[in-house]
Amino acid sequence: MPEPTLGSTAGMLAQIAGTGRDRHRGGYSRPVFAPAERELVDWWTEQVRRRGLEVETDRNGILWSWWNPTGRPLRDGVVTGSHLDSVPGGGAYDGPLGLASALRSLDLLREREIDPVRPLGLAVFPEEEGSRFGVACLGSRLLTGAIDPERARSLTDPDGRSFADAARGAGIDPRHLGRDDETLSRIGRFVELHVEQGRGLVDREAPVAVATSILGHGRWRVSVHGQGNHAGTTLLADRRDPMVTAAGVVLAVRRVAAAHPGARATVGRLVPVPGGTNVIASRVDLWLDVRHAEDAVTAAVVAEITRRAQVVAGEEGCSVEVREESSSPTVDFDPALRDRLGAVLPTAPLLATGAGHDAGVLAAHVPTAMLFTRNPSGVSHSPEEHVTDDDAELGSSALADVLADLLTT
Amino acid sequence: MPEPTLGSTAGMLAQIAGTGRDRHRGGYSRPVFAPAERELVDWWTEQVRRRGLEVETDRNGILWSWWNPTGRPLRDGVVTGSHLDSVPGGGAYDGPLGLASALRSLDLLREREIDPVRPLGLAVFPEEEGSRFGVACLGSRLLTGAIDPERARSLTDPDGRSFADAARGAGIDPRHLGRDDETLSRIGRFVELHVEQGRGLVDREAPVAVATSILGHGRWRVSVHGQGNHAGTTLLADRRDPMVTAAGVVLAVRRVAAAHPGARATVGRLVPVPGGTNVIASRVDLWLDVRHAEDAVTAAVVAEITRRAQVVAGEEGCSVEVREESSSPTVDFDPALRDRLGAVLPTAPLLATGAGHDAGVLAAHVPTAMLFTRNPSGVSHSPEEHVTDDDAELGSSALADVLADLLTT
Repeated sequence: MPEPTLGSTAGMLAQIAGTGRDRHRGGYSRPVFAPAERELVDWWTEQVRRRGLEVETDRNGILWSWWNPTGRPLRDGVVTGSHLDSVPGGGAYDGPLGLASALRSLDLLREREIDPVRPLGLAVFPEEEGSRFGVACLGSRLLTGAIDPERARSLTDPDGRSFADAARGAGIDPRHLGRDDETLSRIGRFVELHVEQGRGLVDREAPVAVATSILGHGRWRVSVHGQGNHAGTTLLADRRDPMVTAAGVVLAVRRVAAAHPGARATVGRLVPVPGGTNVIASRVDLWLDVRHAEDAVTAAVVAEITRRAQVVAGEEGCSVEVREESSSPTVDFDPALRDRLGAVLPTAPLLATGAGHDAGVLAAHVPTAMLFTRNPSGVSHSPEEHVTDDDAELGSSALADVLADLLTT
Repeated sequence: MPEPTLGSTAGMLAQIAGTGRDRHRGGYSRPVFAPAERELVDWWTEQVRRRGLEVETDRNGILWSWWNPTGRPLRDGVVTGSHLDSVPGGGAYDGPLGLASALRSLDLLREREIDPVRPLGLAVFPEEEGSRFGVACLGSRLLTGAIDPERARSLTDPDGRSFADAARGAGIDPRHLGRDDETLSRIGRFVELHVEQGRGLVDREAPVAVATSILGHGRWRVSVHGQGNHAGTTLLADRRDPMVTAAGVVLAVRRVAAAHPGARATVGRLVPVPGGTNVIASRVDLWLDVRHAEDAVTAAVVAEITRRAQVVAGEEGCSVEVREESSSPTVDFDPALRDRLGAVLPTAPLLATGAGHDAGVLAAHVPTAMLFTRNPSGVSHSPEEHVTDDDAELGSSALADVLADLLTT
């Protein structure tokens, strides 16, 4: 395989290919504010500075850089960006591809000597995955006021460290978290490029798509309480084993989702407490991810799972609580902006996605669009996620075309 | 509640009541060779030295102290002891009660001015729970040659650290691990006092029991392999989700055990990889603990669970492997020694136990016996485990009676 060209989209990604590798899970683990993600922030800062721009961190930990060669007021700009944090054991492209493509498209716009009539912003959003503090798109939710800053401050990571404390460690004053109208006013339109996370482009044999919508989705924490005891001395009849209930919940999740066409429901994280081999757990926490195009169906799926969870808990003498951690309604991207992207990229198919993005949060405030770059594996949130060097370049070029159109007219 | 008397069994346990508390799980987490357990080793060493004895660490990390007032050869001694390590979130008594009772019984023997005709050994065994490196009774297994030292060296903890490396950190040269006939020759009889881990003594309204047998038991690691993917973009029909299979396995474990009277089978530890809320896992590891009085039934239970696991894996397009991590046949304690204890303690009921102990491993080499002290909660491997101060003292006194008999005739 030839080395990617220095300065190409793939060449930039190659610079961070060693950062945050997860030897246990494979792929990358880059939780927000932890060392690997901070290394990526340094990489991003150096890349931006090398292009003569500055990086500023706003009140919510979002990184901003502006290309504004004619010194216009920072208002109603065109913004592109994505995120550096990853899911545990995630792929190399989810987030960083959008940022490398943003840098590459800036280079292309300069090569093309376009004459922008408004500023171009580059943005990096923290905790997009919600892998550390449980709420996805936390940076954009704070910016837009979609989450109470008090609740955000008190979110904790698996080690019990609060978001407030971790943010402070990253140089952000947690007292100033929250809706930021000044920063919002700078964003006239937002376009995020992202690796595709399904098989849409593979099946259509196209390198780039324009997004139509994001499936509504939410996260619920299901806590099953039983009685911890000794695995050897406790008769089956005397057990109130929350793991047995949790297993019943996992199967109910699959069955309920299957009964609602188009629904997706997943348990990817499950933690027995205390978690010893010779110990009947006293509690099992599991996290439920549910998505459907119709928000009423999502609600019905969660209600039915909750009902069945209570039945299986009752059979084992356990109790169960279900708490919403976050929810996002289905987002239809701004039709006018979508059509404008479609006119610039006439061969790009239109695709809906089941994955959440900061673009979905921003869409409630400004006209927002997304581009997807083909992923030949069709797999994401996994080391198998992939983008060819050629497709990465085609994606950057498409993003540059879109930005040129939005910046010059 | 009155303070326990200084120097009483409960008074000694009160000295370590603050060591290794687990604020997340409740109770105590004292994994072998980690700081809390090392602090307990310091406490033990100080207690032993205060009584004029020395502590030596043998090749396998077992701590030995000898009361041998008449300077007899260290051969065919009477040994009592237990362990300091705990399960995650375990109780205060599992292990430490046997050690505090050993110290207290030594004090009582000296108060009674008995005239021992053989040495009394006090022993602390490492990694009795197997909570850190997966194999229970690792110290006694190494001492007796019941585990290949090469295999022991290569066992790893959840952070990937090897037993060899952790042992080295605790001052043990891992090259010298393995069967130790010189040390074994010093043990003529072994008597372990332990907190009861079920309701046998509560139901019989007695403070102390003599053990008859330990249920055969083993641990198996079940690894389910599927395909990691994005929880939002992956259609149900395209999933090979190992969590769904793992849930089916947990339910099969319960059903198969229920179909074999007297069998106990538990999944208390389950780890999805990578373990993200918005990520379909690529692999789930779970640990199976199975116990039955007849070893053939244990084997049949595991075989049937394995067969059902393969069926549920096949339905989801996953694969499954089941590997034995350890197994221990049912142990019937030496009948002559048991009867001798019964003669010394005529009101003590005889009890079988479902819990494994170092005494069970040593029983294959020397006449071995156990005493159980009443646990009013009937619960163990849990913060709810309990022993009253009075019962702790009655247990120590019973142990002193037994040791006096064995040491003087």
